[in-house]
Amino acid sequence: MLTMQDALARLTAYWTEQGCLTVQPMNTEVGAGTLNPATFLRVLGPEPWRVVYVEPSVRPDDSRYGENPNRLQTHTQLQVILKPDPGNPQELYLGSLAAIGIDVAAHDVRFVEDNWASPALGAWGLGWEVWLDGLEITQFTYFQQAGGVNLDPVSVEITYGIERIIMALQDKSHFKDIEYGRGVSYGEVFGQGEYEMSRYYLDDADVAANRQLLELYAGEAQRMIDAGLPVPAHTYVLKCSQAFNVLDSRGAVSTADRAAEFGRMRRLAGEVAKLWAARREELGHPLGLAAVPALAAPVALPAEKDETRLLVFEIGTEELPPAECRAALGYLEREIKNGLGGTRLAHGDVRVFATPRRLVAVVADVAARETDHVRTVRGPKLAQAYTADGSPTPALQGFLRGQGATVEQAAEGDFNGVRHVVVNKPEAGGAAAAVLAPVLAKVVTGLRGAKNMRWSDPQLSYSRPVRWLLALWGDDVVPVAAGTLAAGRETRVLRTAATPVLTIESAETFMETLAFNGIVADPEDRTELIVTGAQDEVYPDGKIDVRGEQALIDQITYLVEAPTPLLGTFDESYLSLPDAVLTTVMRKHQRYLPVRDAEGALLPMFVTVANGPVDVELVRQGNEAVLRARYEDAAFFYRADREVLPADMRARLDRLTFTDKLGSMADRASRIAAIALALAADLGLSSATLDRAAALVKFDLGSQLVTEMTSLAGVMARDYALHAGEARTVAQAVYEAELPRNTGDDLPASLPGALLSLADRLDLVAGLAATVGLPTGSSDPFAVRRAVLGLLAVHRAHPALAGLSLTSGLRAAAALQPVEVSAAVLAAAADFLAKRFEQALVEEGYPVDRVRAVLPHADRPSVAVNLLTQLASVSANPDFVAVAEAIQRCRRIVPAGTIAGYDAGLLKEPAEIALHEAVSAVTPPASPDLFEFTGAVARLAAPLGTFFDEVFVMADDPALRAARLGLLATVRDLGEGLLDWSELR
Amino acid sequence: MLTMQDALARLTAYWTEQGCLTVQPMNTEVGAGTLNPATFLRVLGPEPWRVVYVEPSVRPDDSRYGENPNRLQTHTQLQVILKPDPGNPQELYLGSLAAIGIDVAAHDVRFVEDNWASPALGAWGLGWEVWLDGLEITQFTYFQQAGGVNLDPVSVEITYGIERIIMALQDKSHFKDIEYGRGVSYGEVFGQGEYEMSRYYLDDADVAANRQLLELYAGEAQRMIDAGLPVPAHTYVLKCSQAFNVLDSRGAVSTADRAAEFGRMRRLAGEVAKLWAARREELGHPLGLAAVPALAAPVALPAEKDETRLLVFEIGTEELPPAECRAALGYLEREIKNGLGGTRLAHGDVRVFATPRRLVAVVADVAARETDHVRTVRGPKLAQAYTADGSPTPALQGFLRGQGATVEQAAEGDFNGVRHVVVNKPEAGGAAAAVLAPVLAKVVTGLRGAKNMRWSDPQLSYSRPVRWLLALWGDDVVPVAAGTLAAGRETRVLRTAATPVLTIESAETFMETLAFNGIVADPEDRTELIVTGAQDEVYPDGKIDVRGEQALIDQITYLVEAPTPLLGTFDESYLSLPDAVLTTVMRKHQRYLPVRDAEGALLPMFVTVANGPVDVELVRQGNEAVLRARYEDAAFFYRADREVLPADMRARLDRLTFTDKLGSMADRASRIAAIALALAADLGLSSATLDRAAALVKFDLGSQLVTEMTSLAGVMARDYALHAGEARTVAQAVYEAELPRNTGDDLPASLPGALLSLADRLDLVAGLAATVGLPTGSSDPFAVRRAVLGLLAVHRAHPALAGLSLTSGLRAAAALQPVEVSAAVLAAAADFLAKRFEQALVEEGYPVDRVRAVLPHADRPSVAVNLLTQLASVSANPDFVAVAEAIQRCRRIVPAGTIAGYDAGLLKEPAEIALHEAVSAVTPPASPDLFEFTGAVARLAAPLGTFFDEVFVMADDPALRAARLGLLATVRDLGEGLLDWSELR
Repeated sequence: MLTMQDALARLTAYWTEQGCLTVQPMNTEVGAGTLNPATFLRVLGPEPWRVVYVEPSVRPDDSRYGENPNRLQTHTQLQVILKPDPGNPQELYLGSLAAIGIDVAAHDVRFVEDNWASPALGAWGLGWEVWLDGLEITQFTYFQQAGGVNLDPVSVEITYGIERIIMALQDKSHFKDIEYGRGVSYGEVFGQGEYEMSRYYLDDADVAANRQLLELYAGEAQRMIDAGLPVPAHTYVLKCSQAFNVLDSRGAVSTADRAAEFGRMRRLAGEVAKLWAARREELGHPLGLAAVPALAAPVALPAEKDETRLLVFEIGTEELPPAECRAALGYLEREIKNGLGGTRLAHGDVRVFATPRRLVAVVADVAARETDHVRTVRGPKLAQAYTADGSPTPALQGFLRGQGATVEQAAEGDFNGVRHVVVNKPEAGGAAAAVLAPVLAKVVTGLRGAKNMRWSDPQLSYSRPVRWLLALWGDDVVPVAAGTLAAGRETRVLRTAATPVLTIESAETFMETLAFNGIVADPEDRTELIVTGAQDEVYPDGKIDVRGEQALIDQITYLVEAPTPLLGTFDESYLSLPDAVLTTVMRKHQRYLPVRDAEGALLPMFVTVANGPVDVELVRQGNEAVLRARYEDAAFFYRADREVLPADMRARLDRLTFTDKLGSMADRASRIAAIALALAADLGLSSATLDRAAALVKFDLGSQLVTEMTSLAGVMARDYALHAGEARTVAQAVYEAELPRNTGDDLPASLPGALLSLADRLDLVAGLAATVGLPTGSSDPFAVRRAVLGLLAVHRAHPALAGLSLTSGLRAAAALQPVEVSAAVLAAAADFLAKRFEQALVEEGYPVDRVRAVLPHADRPSVAVNLLTQLASVSANPDFVAVAEAIQRCRRIVPAGTIAGYDAGLLKEPAEIALHEAVSAVTPPASPDLFEFTGAVARLAAPLGTFFDEVFVMADDPALRAARLGLLATVRDLGEGLLDWSELR
Repeated sequence: MLTMQDALARLTAYWTEQGCLTVQPMNTEVGAGTLNPATFLRVLGPEPWRVVYVEPSVRPDDSRYGENPNRLQTHTQLQVILKPDPGNPQELYLGSLAAIGIDVAAHDVRFVEDNWASPALGAWGLGWEVWLDGLEITQFTYFQQAGGVNLDPVSVEITYGIERIIMALQDKSHFKDIEYGRGVSYGEVFGQGEYEMSRYYLDDADVAANRQLLELYAGEAQRMIDAGLPVPAHTYVLKCSQAFNVLDSRGAVSTADRAAEFGRMRRLAGEVAKLWAARREELGHPLGLAAVPALAAPVALPAEKDETRLLVFEIGTEELPPAECRAALGYLEREIKNGLGGTRLAHGDVRVFATPRRLVAVVADVAARETDHVRTVRGPKLAQAYTADGSPTPALQGFLRGQGATVEQAAEGDFNGVRHVVVNKPEAGGAAAAVLAPVLAKVVTGLRGAKNMRWSDPQLSYSRPVRWLLALWGDDVVPVAAGTLAAGRETRVLRTAATPVLTIESAETFMETLAFNGIVADPEDRTELIVTGAQDEVYPDGKIDVRGEQALIDQITYLVEAPTPLLGTFDESYLSLPDAVLTTVMRKHQRYLPVRDAEGALLPMFVTVANGPVDVELVRQGNEAVLRARYEDAAFFYRADREVLPADMRARLDRLTFTDKLGSMADRASRIAAIALALAADLGLSSATLDRAAALVKFDLGSQLVTEMTSLAGVMARDYALHAGEARTVAQAVYEAELPRNTGDDLPASLPGALLSLADRLDLVAGLAATVGLPTGSSDPFAVRRAVLGLLAVHRAHPALAGLSLTSGLRAAAALQPVEVSAAVLAAAADFLAKRFEQALVEEGYPVDRVRAVLPHADRPSVAVNLLTQLASVSANPDFVAVAEAIQRCRRIVPAGTIAGYDAGLLKEPAEIALHEAVSAVTPPASPDLFEFTGAVARLAAPLGTFFDEVFVMADDPALRAARLGLLATVRDLGEGLLDWSELR
């Protein structure tokens, strides 16, 4: 068995063999290897750098007195930096796993999307967490920015979590049991330190002293920046970070502090980064300049052929995020079709496929050449082409010379009615390869994801690096060149295959070669394999809720290219944990499919989908161990949480920031409570249940379990409240306050729950609208859109809330914010809400015109929806139709701004007097109800028809005309506020 | 070529194979690997521990902006702890050198005494610096105490200085040129950090901020101690240390600060150590308990023989310090002789030998058995032994029964004149092996050095570990057992020999076997080999000043056991450095013999004496490189120093502590100046030279070169003063102020120099006597004894100073001390001075009685010596003899306390009247001069003789008696103050 120290030595040796320098851990406390100057400073600037080092990483917040089996205040990272990206960092990484005895072919090793950002360092990158049989063992990042500086070249950062790797390799369930050195356990070596440093960080560190340390460190950092010395400055930034972390773990960081400290550290780190880069330049870049990779030269064009062949184009990537992979399918199909459409190359169907590592387009029956055609080139106007004697003018001569044509070849053509001399040039179509090459190249260079990155390619930018291109038309390579890549006939199958790189003879054999090598290129096929495979695994006792797990299955489909479903089990005792805890861990953390019995109760098992022909037993055991550890963790938190009273947990929200300007989570919870109580008072819905629930709302954000798994907010509140002896109704209301968590989620069933839910969302919208602004474009970090949809849904679900105006609710929420919320902001928020409502209703299938007609009620969505329902019914009612026509007719005739009032004494025609009398007799209904309205207003239809037939509204006498218009405006206004009649079609 | 990172990896791997854990460097700045808790805490308590780790060690004071080729603010240590001592740590260590490709047989690897102590940590140990061809590459220490706690078991600490090892292996002359990783230099990786951190430590660190940091750290350390958490407490002690070092390198540590901070750190470290030990005990010593080595069982006794054979007894040790080794020779001879003397074993000559690794006794002609003898056992008194009828009394019967004797065997004997019954028991002598075993064992257990240590042996304690015993009487092993060691017939020769352990068949072959294997056991033989070898090496152009270098040659004799002198050279350009610099480096740092030409001028060469059959060319090159680096360093300092004016250098003494209570070196220099000027004023010896020299005295302690080589104090002062344009007399005086530096050294030739020298020593004695106390026993850390001898020597050397009383000089010095110097202390100091004087004079060969007679003049040594000289002359003068006898006779007769005065009118006898008249006529000389005194007093001899013949002093009449005694007291007092007549024999 490999000891931990042996593993560190082997990894270090492996990377040293790959040309890495070995340096020592930082000699001041750091939270991660990234902070070591060997990473943070060295990734800046143009110098090449390869390094490997161990970094004991201090996370005061993770202190657990050494009791938690998986969490340590100091854990061991092994950090590798490859600068520039060597082009094959994943393969090098897999080699390192082999170096510590991990059979990567037998295990299920995966690269699962995980991007990294450190706001305090102004640093970010894209990459993955690497999974070993479901266990996250490594963070793998393409560094894009550090200290706010764009990195060029990009560095690859590989960070191994050593303890967890070793626990897996040694099959240990507690870090203390790791065999650290031969015959000596981790606990024996580091156990006392874990306990004592935990004590320091959690209980005993002096807050005042650490606060002073923080200030002194920041002062020295700034002084060193001013002195132009980035190295000592950086050291002091790190010390700032550690002092801050100590304060944080001691619960001594206020909301204002946190924002201010992050800002200060970001600023200092940014200045350090700039200084370092400048100093290195001054020093003439002692390590030299990283070579810029050469752009690819395309292969030579193949000899022309005369046959119709299949076109296959494969863009090979590193593991794409599932969403990006799916999105790329549409892009690929569109671009290929458009690209081909811009040529004269005959072709058949275009089909596209995607796996995490490849985007594939297959085009049937692509002709060998474009069709020939004649190109007409316009010359001078005919009138200016010939002299009187019919000989060519100098203009024509010049044109013909330019086109290489004789006078005899000159013809005529019509251009917008003007005759010109033209030359008709027959053009032969291009050969397939030549025509396809630029089309396909553009597909590659045009690839973009939601978040794009750079790697070693000086031209390409995409979600993840593109590493190879295969382009075959029949037997021929299409000479595509994009960035550093030239297309060839090589594809890559599973990295663990005996022959991971294969040469494809002809396009026609490509798909079957992939299939033969286990790659299921078609996402639909993969989904099918996953679903049936999973069902088979659990048959006959269990079942997979395929519909319920659709989102997860979709995701899994894009996480593997050779799906291998396998069944794992876990100890039944964990079933005592709440279902939501169990399934959240399975779905969100592990992408496991939960298994249920016929009644829908969870069974102690799961299905995971490995990639490729792994050693099933090994992978099963690994995944089971991971789940056990996660459940153990959760059970640890759950037990600890249940020992804390809800009110005490609520008190912890002081320490959680909501946003910089909007205070702590405690502030927010207090506002939610106040808003809910105010709404209830307005509506006469106050209750003891609501009072108590309002006092507790969001308390579970202070629990350890929700801190770990935020999606369990509400669920755990209910559980903990019940456990603490709160009334069932209170527990339910606190749970329902979080509903709906996403589109299609359950809605609060109880009124107290509904009121809290609304209050939560009103607070969010009002506060954020006034501070960060309402979301535009795709960015919506606080999920304001979702909150608004929630508002609408909850309102609609509760007739008792029909009287509640969301707009006035927003006003109430606005009044409680710690910042000013202007009228303009409120108006914008109301408008935003109306727009979301409109969109939602349309998406639900309501006719656009009717939706728009009821939008004036957007602030009372249940009213609006009721009206929509009535509209569907009354629109076939002749009375309503007549009324609507009448009102619309009035609106058309009466100029805008005309007041609904008139001197009835001026009216003289019988028809107008009859209308006047009918109008006077109408009492419109108090509430918005189309049936009542129709009933009340229908009697006007006949007099109004007669009026229009017999009365000339626009009388010469201005007074009379005014009276008649006023009468019609009165009719018009009968429907005012009920519908936007102008929108009805 | 091995890169630095490869070397670190290989050493780590090597020690891991020896069962060491690998841990990481400390994640807060430390000055040495010793401070890492993996050493400082783990060496405490009974748990076993083996560890290896790299430790980048931060020494702010060593900051040189990366310019000095050999000095870095952060250098790399590789630290190994072996706990308990494995018994063969040196051999393991040599294996590690082989692991990085050092051929230890070809190189000259030596263990040279170097003990380690960290007062700030309350830690110390004994051991060596390891030399590789003269280069110090490793510190090797047996840890005895840490945090003031005795260590049991003892740990072996091995600390490699990696940069210098690599510089040697890679043959680089600047650390920046080290190949750190393949193709990447140390300078490229760490150069910028060296520069910038140097800037921070030397120029830019904020003093106020670091002072606050120090206080905050100390506060947290104390808080954690109070909380019972040694691990975080230790971390904060380390942070204290770093903050203190930063302040120090910024020149911001006052004398008071330094003492206080060291005290605080020592106290904190001590508390941490005790806490850690207590906590480990509470935890039940998670790593178990180190096995206590079993005591040796002696081998079986050999069969008895009947022959006279040689006895050889070898005590094998690790490398003894030269002084200890030499001292052990005497011990060994005395103990063996005494031990044998306590037996009845006939034997011949006892010869003893010693090398650094062995103490050997060879005893000729040891008999096979002790001689037989008869033992007489005393029984009851004869009177009580028999009844009247001659039959045995019960008493006799009991006695005989007890002795197993019959009545017939009862005999008689005389005891102090009383007759007793006795039993005579013939006893056979013991066999040689049985008799010798306890004698030899006692030699081993009784071994003691000036400083003793413990190692893995639970019983033995000595200067260095004893590792093997060989004891052979002829062919037989003498079954000696001491501690864990049982004697056998195995000896060890050079560790690098093909067969380093040899079996000796018989005692008679032992010495020749050693000799055959290159071991020169006899120190005299080694000295001879060294001297002739060295002379041969430099012949014919150079010569070794054998007499002048005697002390060094003596030392070398005990540094090697197989001397191999070899010649090295250095670049002539270094001859521009002062001779003293060159020779100090050679002698003190390197133990090289300087080579001079016929005129005595230094030649650019040296002789070093390697141990064993090394690769001479390799070793020569190594030593040359070391000397070059040292000279380069010295030249660097020398150049830098010469750019500083003496007055500016003098100003730096503010930053050097003299002692805690006696202020800075600047304070001391000021006192020296004031004392010297006061003495000069008293003696009328004031001069401009003295004034200027007093203002500068000790200024060179502020130079870099003297900081490095304190023995150059004074020498450099003269050089720098001359260079700065000071008068030659001033430069000489400042130099002479430091003389004499040791016994037999030059004395100040000029009066200003002499006055400063005296003032220096008076200040030292007065100040230390009042604070740390005068030296007792062997401990004399401030060399007060040497200072006193200097005082005496300088005084004696200058007749112009004869009028100066050292006692009053001490009083003057005392008045200037920053602490009170009581009268009792001054008296003790004067007494101390007198005792040293007495001893010195006796050692010079003066008769003890005369020395004692002149001791009243110890405070004017030149006077005392003058009197001694006169005594030698006058003691043959009958007048003086008569005078002396007369005075002594008076002293005997006159009771103590009798006043020298009488009523002459009471005298009546002619003899007493004659004496009275003669006494009245005597005028004793003003100055102490025996010739004058004799001349003046001789006339009393006759009257005094008559007086005694004729006068009965003790008359019945009290008045008369008093008058006669008063008369004699007056005679007695004529010699008072001149000599202590009572001492004269």
